Amino acid sequence: MPNLPLRVGIVGATGYTGMVLCRLLAQHPHVQVTRLFSRQYAGQKVGVVLPHLFPYADITLEAFDPDGNPDVDILFLALPHGAAHADLPKYRHKVHAVVDLSADFRLQDLDVYAQYYGMPHQSPALVKEAVYGIPELHRDPIRKATLLANPGCYATCVTLGLAPLAKAGWIVGPAIVDAKSGVSGAGRGLKENTLFCEVNEDLVPYGTVNHRHVPEMEAQLGVPVLFSPHLIPMTRGMLASMYITLPAGVGFDQVQAAYQAQYAHEPFVTMLPPEQIHTRYVSGSNHCVIGLKDAGSHLIVFSAIDNLIKGASGQAIQNLNIMMGFPETTGLAALALFL
Amino acid sequence: MPNLPLRVGIVGATGYTGMVLCRLLAQHPHVQVTRLFSRQYAGQKVGVVLPHLFPYADITLEAFDPDGNPDVDILFLALPHGAAHADLPKYRHKVHAVVDLSADFRLQDLDVYAQYYGMPHQSPALVKEAVYGIPELHRDPIRKATLLANPGCYATCVTLGLAPLAKAGWIVGPAIVDAKSGVSGAGRGLKENTLFCEVNEDLVPYGTVNHRHVPEMEAQLGVPVLFSPHLIPMTRGMLASMYITLPAGVGFDQVQAAYQAQYAHEPFVTMLPPEQIHTRYVSGSNHCVIGLKDAGSHLIVFSAIDNLIKGASGQAIQNLNIMMGFPETTGLAALALFL
Amino acid sequence: MPNLPLRVGIVGATGYTGMVLCRLLAQHPHVQVTRLFSRQYAGQKVGVVLPHLFPYADITLEAFDPDGNPDVDILFLALPHGAAHADLPKYRHKVHAVVDLSADFRLQDLDVYAQYYGMPHQSPALVKEAVYGIPELHRDPIRKATLLANPGCYATCVTLGLAPLAKAGWIVGPAIVDAKSGVSGAGRGLKENTLFCEVNEDLVPYGTVNHRHVPEMEAQLGVPVLFSPHLIPMTRGMLASMYITLPAGVGFDQVQAAYQAQYAHEPFVTMLPPEQIHTRYVSGSNHCVIGLKDAGSHLIVFSAIDNLIKGASGQAIQNLNIMMGFPETTGLAALALFL
Amino acid sequence: MPNLPLRVGIVGATGYTGMVLCRLLAQHPHVQVTRLFSRQYAGQKVGVVLPHLFPYADITLEAFDPDGNPDVDILFLALPHGAAHADLPKYRHKVHAVVDLSADFRLQDLDVYAQYYGMPHQSPALVKEAVYGIPELHRDPIRKATLLANPGCYATCVTLGLAPLAKAGWIVGPAIVDAKSGVSGAGRGLKENTLFCEVNEDLVPYGTVNHRHVPEMEAQLGVPVLFSPHLIPMTRGMLASMYITLPAGVGFDQVQAAYQAQYAHEPFVTMLPPEQIHTRYVSGSNHCVIGLKDAGSHLIVFSAIDNLIKGASGQAIQNLNIMMGFPETTGLAALALFL
Repeated sequence: MPNLPLRVGIVGATGYTGMVLCRLLAQHPHVQVTRLFSRQYAGQKVGVVLPHLFPYADITLEAFDPDGNPDVDILFLALPHGAAHADLPKYRHKVHAVVDLSADFRLQDLDVYAQYYGMPHQSPALVKEAVYGIPELHRDPIRKATLLANPGCYATCVTLGLAPLAKAGWIVGPAIVDAKSGVSGAGRGLKENTLFCEVNEDLVPYGTVNHRHVPEMEAQLGVPVLFSPHLIPMTRGMLASMYITLPAGVGFDQVQAAYQAQYAHEPFVTMLPPEQIHTRYVSGSNHCVIGLKDAGSHLIVFSAIDNLIKGASGQAIQNLNIMMGFPETTGLAALALFL
Repeated sequence: MPNLPLRVGIVGATGYTGMVLCRLLAQHPHVQVTRLFSRQYAGQKVGVVLPHLFPYADITLEAFDPDGNPDVDILFLALPHGAAHADLPKYRHKVHAVVDLSADFRLQDLDVYAQYYGMPHQSPALVKEAVYGIPELHRDPIRKATLLANPGCYATCVTLGLAPLAKAGWIVGPAIVDAKSGVSGAGRGLKENTLFCEVNEDLVPYGTVNHRHVPEMEAQLGVPVLFSPHLIPMTRGMLASMYITLPAGVGFDQVQAAYQAQYAHEPFVTMLPPEQIHTRYVSGSNHCVIGLKDAGSHLIVFSAIDNLIKGASGQAIQNLNIMMGFPETTGLAALALFL
Repeated sequence: MPNLPLRVGIVGATGYTGMVLCRLLAQHPHVQVTRLFSRQYAGQKVGVVLPHLFPYADITLEAFDPDGNPDVDILFLALPHGAAHADLPKYRHKVHAVVDLSADFRLQDLDVYAQYYGMPHQSPALVKEAVYGIPELHRDPIRKATLLANPGCYATCVTLGLAPLAKAGWIVGPAIVDAKSGVSGAGRGLKENTLFCEVNEDLVPYGTVNHRHVPEMEAQLGVPVLFSPHLIPMTRGMLASMYITLPAGVGFDQVQAAYQAQYAHEPFVTMLPPEQIHTRYVSGSNHCVIGLKDAGSHLIVFSAIDNLIKGASGQAIQNLNIMMGFPETTGLAALALFL
Repeated sequence: MPNLPLRVGIVGATGYTGMVLCRLLAQHPHVQVTRLFSRQYAGQKVGVVLPHLFPYADITLEAFDPDGNPDVDILFLALPHGAAHADLPKYRHKVHAVVDLSADFRLQDLDVYAQYYGMPHQSPALVKEAVYGIPELHRDPIRKATLLANPGCYATCVTLGLAPLAKAGWIVGPAIVDAKSGVSGAGRGLKENTLFCEVNEDLVPYGTVNHRHVPEMEAQLGVPVLFSPHLIPMTRGMLASMYITLPAGVGFDQVQAAYQAQYAHEPFVTMLPPEQIHTRYVSGSNHCVIGLKDAGSHLIVFSAIDNLIKGASGQAIQNLNIMMGFPETTGLAALALFL
């Protein structure tokens, strides 16, 4: 167990999830961010590249060298999918733990990985060691993890929203999931379809049925998911609207009780009436809000998170807290920004 | 048949659908807007209240008097639901035709009207005369109409999206409709939940299952609709994502052929690939774009319109064109504003 | 001196500045929010009205009674202008200190107050006791204050931006200030011009020359200010672009040195290059960023804050910290949300 | 004089100004768009690349060959600055007229061109032939032009706003111009600073003092301009707020009269009260609205246009109308989209 404060490094610090990690970790009492890696901005000061991260102004961004020594206790990998799996064996043993925010270690089925991410996995042995971590569902394995696969944003939102049903075996046929996400989920790479003038005042479905987060959800829920995401003209926030056929004889009261049993004591999950499932109530926080609506033939479940926090960097810190034995909410007390 | 140009009056000219009618009719070669009615701004010049409507600058807004003589050929009613049905008999015979953009004459079943709109209908005889007009589906009755019930925005978007399936009897069980609308659909009334700071960077479901447009859709489609609308942080645009179970043996090719047969010659409906169903491709125009996705167990249909144009004022003019024997696209040639 | 944690009450808790106070104080280690007052929502739980304020969910909102006993140590008044001055004498002695976020105690000249706010001041004696508090400029009097007049958002942004020049006597003629603000500055009241569809994709000047914050600025800076604010389609953030004629012989180097001398050790003010004065770098934080541009005939100063935090609720807490002898950054460590 | 309808080609059809040209020209009765050029999308159908341009769906985009024959009457160049000046001599004589929307032929002083655009001009002879065209100010030379240099958006907005003062010699010292523009002015190229998540909820000054449109304005107005533009989180719309010192003895009444004299009969310029200078009143139209505010020591002039229409493609068509002897408003009757 390393001494406190933990020395932390972030690889990919100037991408969106990396920036959020920097911001959140500045509030964490047991962490000292000591190294920030960015290929694009290597050699420049944070104060020049990301001036809003005032406490880091004097840190110089570095190119990450997988053959070098990160010289930190904890390494967060905030990289595009596919960027970590080949090189991780080179430096994994030099740090106490790795939290990977990409998809590289999320899927135990390597054929599925190859199919969805378009490349064969280079480190099958590490996949077996990796722990997929939605804290509310996997606390025990997370406690022992030293390679944590942080879940995808959609997978987190949908899995938290349906877990009580899946556990009870109450999802008949495919779960129909209509999801809506702010644009930050697409990352900071330069693409015509995330330019302001292309997204503002627009709404469009994308990745219908074949989105990469589907295998994660299906692995967690154990049922087929008909997944249909949409891009929304807002920076952050994610809402999943889920249309579920219940088995005959399962009533709305039972459903409510199951959610209550699952989430009543969770610090980051709150049940609200369905018309209160505003993404604004969670944007800027690590919270998830879930609402249930009895719709006769179907149950409708609404689940909302901040895609960058509970859907990425905040959950990564929540996982770190569990891994290190800190109280789970350490550094994550911020409420939603609205207003 | 009145002489051309038609003298047109708009009741509720300073609400959102009224403003759009003014704007669109300024391009219509056979129309002369002669009277504009607004209770809130009665006595003021349009040039002061709505300066962007330059051609109308010198018209003085008037309070509408149901007992007076509108002295126009065509009267558009752009009023809140419930505001027209009691008084219409007083002035209906004084004009050649009335196009009502509210819900007051859309539902033939008056019990359903009373249930959804919270008041008994005062003019049952007029309801029978009224023609519900989605032009692509009801051209023949529209031609003879003198009281036109212009459909709701959601009803238009969903009905156009599913009509070929409904006609063929290919919708099994409830149609699951997850709809998303820009904020203008909520109108110009003062409500906390449509303030900029409440809507911007937010996303929320509302009116789940019980939305007032459901009976319209079900009456047109002949199947139950599980309807779940959401408010999107954009001014205009509407997208319906519809999850349909097809009968055994109906293939995707047949479905595509049915849509082709229905819409190939329609000037305002275009089939596009599903990932091209951007609301930006129709916002500012009277167009509807529809995309189909074969999702194994389900068919997904995406349908997008501008909620204020094809979903309200543009369709009202399209209906007027049919009623008057003008080419259907008269005054409606504007393409989507993007950019 | 009251015991810690301080018991805090907020009058006007469900308006925008009140909501931000609630959110920020939840992170303050020496404060316990014990009473929340809201006329509009009196009797309802916070968990129903503002569900995103999770830690306050069980507090019941109360109507504030100026004749009752607030039973707190510190009272924040987050009310519209004019709502506090008449009644404050009734309860002011029952609490240790009052921080007023309205304009009621900002102007020592009561004639000016009457002129700009349209009513005679009812508590002239309290005005004399009140301390106007921009912490970076008025620390000494703030330390002794028990009635603190928290400055206006524009006044804070402009005064911080020009203070080093004003102090040196380097502003010739009127300071020309072109300011831009997000919509939250207009508050949560229902007005047509803050509806989403009226503000989105729009830009407009308002209150040109005669805005109510002008007397505050002029009193602080000692020079006339030609003030021209604009409404920007964003929720939060404020930027002032200020065009200054320097006296002959004052060079850009001297100017830079003066700002350096004033702000080098301030925790919440940072000098940045002018092209880095993004409101995103301060939105969500208590920071102010200032940039200087040598423009030959003129000096241009850009100053940006979050209008709700450094421009209102955050500065109120910063003032409280000074009043109570806490480190000035207590509870205010959050960095800008981007991203 | 070519036969009607004019055969028109657009080089750079898939950029933002090219797209707007396509959209607007679809309403023009004397124009037939016959060729669309786009290097990026050459070989693809418009119906695939820009599906919202329904009437052009079957046109195949082509790479423009400066050595080939455009085979059109009118060629619009909607290219980045610097892309046209070297090659234009090769094809200029093959068409009746060229309207260039870039800066390549706007500046008669070639040294200034070289300084601001970073390259020596390759076709000095053509610069002399080129007519700079703000229709309200240069109708006579435009009538005879066959090479039209369409003005920059900022230059149009500012020059229209100050022309009556400049003409009368009433601008003392530099004109201070604080301008605000929607993001579309930055074009469709891929840049990190025009990504949705970087612009949304942000506000930033840029190009302070040295912006490329300054020499255009100064050449038109004959006085120095202290120009300070800002990026606003909206797609379209531009507002210039201009702070002017008047000569002693020139009163506000005289100023108003001068504007009246200049613009009373202009179809696309309207004087409004300053608090009515909403960009929404012109966005989507070819209009300019101007407001005047007497501010004691200064005159404040507000001028607003749609940067893509009156600031680019709409004005290009207005110029074409004058060049061809069509009524000046032909094809440009659309009112602002709000709503």
